[in-house]
Amino acid sequence: MNTAAGWRHPSTSLYTDHYELTMLQAALHSGAAQRRSVFEAFARRLPEGRRYGVVAGTGRILEGIEHFTFSEDQLDFLARTDVVDAKTIDWLADFRFSGDIYGYAEGEAYFPYSPILIVESSFAEACVLETFVLSVLNHDSAIASAASRMTGAAGGRPCIEMGSRRTHEESAVAAARAAVIGGFWSTSNLEAGYRYGVKTVGTAAHSFTLLHDSEQKAFEAQLASLGVGTTLLADTYDVETAVRTAVDLAGPELGGVRLDSGDLIAQAQWVRKLLDDLGNHHTRITVTSDLDEYAIAALASAPVDSYGVGTELVTGSGAPTASMVYKLVSREGPDGEQVSVAKASKNKISVGGRKYALRRLNQRGAATAEVIGIGHRPFDDGNDRPLLQQFVTNGKLADGWTGDEAVRRAAERHAASMAELPGAVHRLQRGEAAIPTEFEEQP
Amino acid sequence: MNTAAGWRHPSTSLYTDHYELTMLQAALHSGAAQRRSVFEAFARRLPEGRRYGVVAGTGRILEGIEHFTFSEDQLDFLARTDVVDAKTIDWLADFRFSGDIYGYAEGEAYFPYSPILIVESSFAEACVLETFVLSVLNHDSAIASAASRMTGAAGGRPCIEMGSRRTHEESAVAAARAAVIGGFWSTSNLEAGYRYGVKTVGTAAHSFTLLHDSEQKAFEAQLASLGVGTTLLADTYDVETAVRTAVDLAGPELGGVRLDSGDLIAQAQWVRKLLDDLGNHHTRITVTSDLDEYAIAALASAPVDSYGVGTELVTGSGAPTASMVYKLVSREGPDGEQVSVAKASKNKISVGGRKYALRRLNQRGAATAEVIGIGHRPFDDGNDRPLLQQFVTNGKLADGWTGDEAVRRAAERHAASMAELPGAVHRLQRGEAAIPTEFEEQP
Repeated sequence: MNTAAGWRHPSTSLYTDHYELTMLQAALHSGAAQRRSVFEAFARRLPEGRRYGVVAGTGRILEGIEHFTFSEDQLDFLARTDVVDAKTIDWLADFRFSGDIYGYAEGEAYFPYSPILIVESSFAEACVLETFVLSVLNHDSAIASAASRMTGAAGGRPCIEMGSRRTHEESAVAAARAAVIGGFWSTSNLEAGYRYGVKTVGTAAHSFTLLHDSEQKAFEAQLASLGVGTTLLADTYDVETAVRTAVDLAGPELGGVRLDSGDLIAQAQWVRKLLDDLGNHHTRITVTSDLDEYAIAALASAPVDSYGVGTELVTGSGAPTASMVYKLVSREGPDGEQVSVAKASKNKISVGGRKYALRRLNQRGAATAEVIGIGHRPFDDGNDRPLLQQFVTNGKLADGWTGDEAVRRAAERHAASMAELPGAVHRLQRGEAAIPTEFEEQP
Repeated sequence: MNTAAGWRHPSTSLYTDHYELTMLQAALHSGAAQRRSVFEAFARRLPEGRRYGVVAGTGRILEGIEHFTFSEDQLDFLARTDVVDAKTIDWLADFRFSGDIYGYAEGEAYFPYSPILIVESSFAEACVLETFVLSVLNHDSAIASAASRMTGAAGGRPCIEMGSRRTHEESAVAAARAAVIGGFWSTSNLEAGYRYGVKTVGTAAHSFTLLHDSEQKAFEAQLASLGVGTTLLADTYDVETAVRTAVDLAGPELGGVRLDSGDLIAQAQWVRKLLDDLGNHHTRITVTSDLDEYAIAALASAPVDSYGVGTELVTGSGAPTASMVYKLVSREGPDGEQVSVAKASKNKISVGGRKYALRRLNQRGAATAEVIGIGHRPFDDGNDRPLLQQFVTNGKLADGWTGDEAVRRAAERHAASMAELPGAVHRLQRGEAAIPTEFEEQP
């Protein structure tokens, strides 16, 4: 469960495109609404040049589906604005998802056409979930994917998520959650700490220094209140003066200094030397100025102890959405048999049929391919790892996929999933997916 | 007020970076927390090559500040996780914003250094609002700015916001609101209709066609349920067949067809001719495939009736955040006088001092400059238009800046603000801001 007893999950039912409900109305009218259907969420491609993506948001989807119900007031809105007719309103009034949901666990790496989420239910039930499912997967996976590249570039050094101010206030909470799944150590976002139990950190900004009559007075105030283990921001005026003042006031136990501007590589080097010369061997250096995975990689040789990442993380480092789509791939035909379906639109290829997936591993446990079985489970030679989990059965949520615990487990799973992939996955330059996607047709 | 009687605004108080509260703690300790302070939200630059930005989010900020209070459970979280000390928790328990807020009205164009929001209060009160204020302004203004370029490129043709699935589910609601402020006609997002009274539209997706045993059966079902005025999606299989089937079934009153793939310019031309040849002169053509402002401009000569825009709108068309910052520019000194302040960090220039702003207009009412007075109101030659509105006085919100009404007024204001700017503002290619920003020092 979530840590925050006092947080009330919002209703998710109107996070929905108008056309989902008009389709529902027309399908109720034609009778096709009850046809058993399979919808599949997947990405046709990774963001340009990326080697892999990271699944995130599944836990939030599962939590949200529990709150996907329509209140009297919401139904009154749909009636008042003529979105749908009375029969459809009646159907929505009773709505609770009663189907099955399968998919990749959060934290898992994914590739083009990986069947990331599969919803099996009546057309009606799967259709109304579309917009919400895609909103969450597209946002959260974009952030986790960027986060993973950043933590990969950072090696073992901790990354701190600080981008809340550069994205919508609720996206910020989800971004902090996704960042932790992608390997971040902590976040500045208090709501994420409250709601998901992730670690929050922070000390002070330039305004705190400017508020006081001198930098020295500001540092004195911060040290007196937050203790010598705090991190002092060193670039409001002159960095060298700030570092010397900080050490003078705090002594050898000063926790850290933060650098937020200028040439961070050169600056980290001489600040480290200055700290060491002053005897502050344990005082850490945090850098925080417009970092992305490339800047982090460039700082690998500099004596930096942690990275604070903002804008580029919460905007997906050039890929703010994961381009996932949610497509009907199979539905009941007039004779009650399932029929594979796919549209023929140019440049938007879909593959019909229920999918199964495994990660092909060689004898050393290294991944060599993403194998997708169409309509059947692909052949497993004994080394391979099946990728689909069943999250929901007849509307009932399985344990362990939501709340705080899901975030912790997803972060562990992310590390394991990355360890299994070939080394090329860590290359930051543009290239192909780290492993190929192979379809296996029905034998 | 908001349309949705049943929607409960969430608490906004933990949409806050950890360091805002540790700064508060240290400033309460030093006594500086009570110093009267002026914080200013502004953008140092427009996104690369953009001619202007559009302010959005102010109404959401003002609504959110009403809900910026700390519950027992939230305070317990802050205590339990040692974010701040007991004295700070006590201060937060009583928090209600009691200062003044000024700024640009929503829908107004802005330029580099425009003082978009000014918060005057104790340091403590203004500090804790920082993260929430920036999250909203940075997201909503990024979307409204992209929306405005798109509606400019569309000329008088209606633009429909359909990007909900490509962004976080709550960002999607705010994006729909911001899109309407930037000139969009409607949205697919039902929650935005519920919460802000904006018009919602939609008919059907490819899955609806695939669900039925043939395209003809799907069209029959849609027409039977939604009426002949509906819009039929024409590219699931073959576009020409679909258009002919649609006209056969619906007759001359068919509302519209939607094209979602392929070469939209050529396709719109032959589909228009086909519809006309079949006698369907009033059947509209909507196009919806990965549009941005450039694609919309390229479609200007094609016989298209409306544009549906998704991904590129909700991701800010290459600029997903507006890069606004919130800086302390003035605070009380030890003698009680206000002191202008600004940090000296390299490449991150701030200008100290309380700002005032007007748009300089020539005798024909055309804008020629953004004039920012530092510490005083700039000289107004009688033609000029002051830009700062007072939204909040001693914690009390002025009427007319929140809820549905604010969105409608902001959309009107956006149109008026755009009409005043030089024609260069509509150029899509990269260039300089449409008017220069001029600072006027204290005389």
